[in-house]
Amino acid sequence: MRLTDYTDYSLRVMLYLAVRPEGLSTIQEISDAYGISKNHLMKVVQRLGELGWVETVRGRNGGLRLEARTPLLTVGEVVRKTENDFSIVGCFANASEPHRHCVIQSHCRLRGVFAKARDAFLEELDQHTVGDLASPAGELAGLLGIVRFTPAANIVNGITGHS
Amino acid sequence: MRLTDYTDYSLRVMLYLAVRPEGLSTIQEISDAYGISKNHLMKVVQRLGELGWVETVRGRNGGLRLEARTPLLTVGEVVRKTENDFSIVGCFANASEPHRHCVIQSHCRLRGVFAKARDAFLEELDQHTVGDLASPAGELAGLLGIVRFTPAANIVNGITGHS
Repeated sequence: MRLTDYTDYSLRVMLYLAVRPEGLSTIQEISDAYGISKNHLMKVVQRLGELGWVETVRGRNGGLRLEARTPLLTVGEVVRKTENDFSIVGCFANASEPHRHCVIQSHCRLRGVFAKARDAFLEELDQHTVGDLASPAGELAGLLGIVRFTPAANIVNGITGHS
Repeated sequence: MRLTDYTDYSLRVMLYLAVRPEGLSTIQEISDAYGISKNHLMKVVQRLGELGWVETVRGRNGGLRLEARTPLLTVGEVVRKTENDFSIVGCFANASEPHRHCVIQSHCRLRGVFAKARDAFLEELDQHTVGDLASPAGELAGLLGIVRFTPAANIVNGITGHS
């Protein structure tokens, strides 16, 4: 039983952006931090944009940031949208694949059992938000190589001091 | 999120045998009933035998039947044994595949969240036994084309009556 890499990467991108709430991040930075190919991440980020969870700012100093409400999303809400197959077993109806007929379907209890188990899985994921994942923020930022926000005035002073 | 066909077929074989508690069934009968290839089922049945859940009687009138305690097995116990990958996401340790390193692993909450969700999934499956799946027995037997047990004396009388 496995979720797709697509779901895994979607959560990791949003975790990265949640740990870095100020400023913009680039796909290159996220790719470097996790060692995930930039090509994979581009597709992931495009979809996260379409879902309204990540904002893409274009231009030379552009980049990515979370939309304001994204930290409130539950992990369950994310997984329901990014995972394209919650069929569990072949006889479940599934939009992306033809339904596989099973002769006992009309009286089979297994379908109901698996549907309940899937719901229990998702309900547990609903107990946690994207914002919750961004903790402990300092440690995660360190591991991801994120330089935490320093007020602009200090940077200017620092530069001035060295010049 | 999907279980393997292997798990699906294992449960269906045991459901078939649970619906037919008397006598022996053949792989051919189960293959015909579900429309699943005999080759696939042979591997499944072999493994169910190794697990001590299905007994194979050899010989001309041989066949399969459930071991006495198999109806008491929970669906969760079956799935834990037949499903070879409960990794959910790549960073979980998994015996069949090298562990995929993730830079934030030491402080990532997502692993714990997914582990809890997987446990909730399996706990729900533990609420139901293989024996529970064999109900409603009459309807399932009909759909599977299983001729329900008739005492041997009646069959003999019936044959005698027509001859």
